[in-house]
Amino acid sequence: MADFLNLIPIEEIGIGMSASYSQTITDADIKAFAGISGDRNPVHLDEHYAENSRYKKRIAHGLMTASYFSALFGTKIPGEGCVYVSQSLNFKRPIYIGDTVIATVEVVKIDLEKNRVFFKTTCKVKNKIVTDGDAEIYIPRDRN
Amino acid sequence: MADFLNLIPIEEIGIGMSASYSQTITDADIKAFAGISGDRNPVHLDEHYAENSRYKKRIAHGLMTASYFSALFGTKIPGEGCVYVSQSLNFKRPIYIGDTVIATVEVVKIDLEKNRVFFKTTCKVKNKIVTDGDAEIYIPRDRN
Repeated sequence: MADFLNLIPIEEIGIGMSASYSQTITDADIKAFAGISGDRNPVHLDEHYAENSRYKKRIAHGLMTASYFSALFGTKIPGEGCVYVSQSLNFKRPIYIGDTVIATVEVVKIDLEKNRVFFKTTCKVKNKIVTDGDAEIYIPRDRN
Repeated sequence: MADFLNLIPIEEIGIGMSASYSQTITDADIKAFAGISGDRNPVHLDEHYAENSRYKKRIAHGLMTASYFSALFGTKIPGEGCVYVSQSLNFKRPIYIGDTVIATVEVVKIDLEKNRVFFKTTCKVKNKIVTDGDAEIYIPRDRN
């Protein structure tokens, strides 16, 4: 049996529970994400291109912010072994190199019958929302 | 001015236009994604843990598949300089190491007035959907 010590049982999850993670975006993040995803859009990689774009500077891949939600689900609430069912994402503002992103997931609904927990997911930079959306997570009771 | 040669003008985009990208998922992808995201859920990283989980083997991070949609938008349709507005994602089946993922984005709606293109986004493994969803992309006319 897998060790489920790090998975919060659904009965112990309450509406309003939240977890946050904060990270400063650097060139290294963007280059690594470009490598994994294959997204080599020059708005992310090319200073000269970016200077002449609507953003004036290179911006991070929007989906990078979403990956912090995944990390919070898999390591904080509900924790190890939870199953990502769905995620919606609205990319509202660009994120620049040097920006410190604060990602937060907050429980908004619990379905005990179907073992689902619903979250509001938000990334902020300087107290402004850069990415938001909703997520649904399944918490297995049966460990197989 | 940025070089917009690699951005398809909205007038040249038609419903049903599509682009695909295919990649075989390896341990390297998963380790790199764990590093960027901070998502060190052992279902992705730990063989022993995964053997005793519902999946029996390590699985890829669901959001990794979404990153291929980002790549297709940023490099194929519409191409460089497009703006990611939103993405919904349904994670339907696990993806294992060695699986070859085919990501496809297909135009389903065009709003010429608001310069928006709407896509159906799908990732398949062995002809079964592993991730699907919808995306909205803004195509700048004014290059600033």
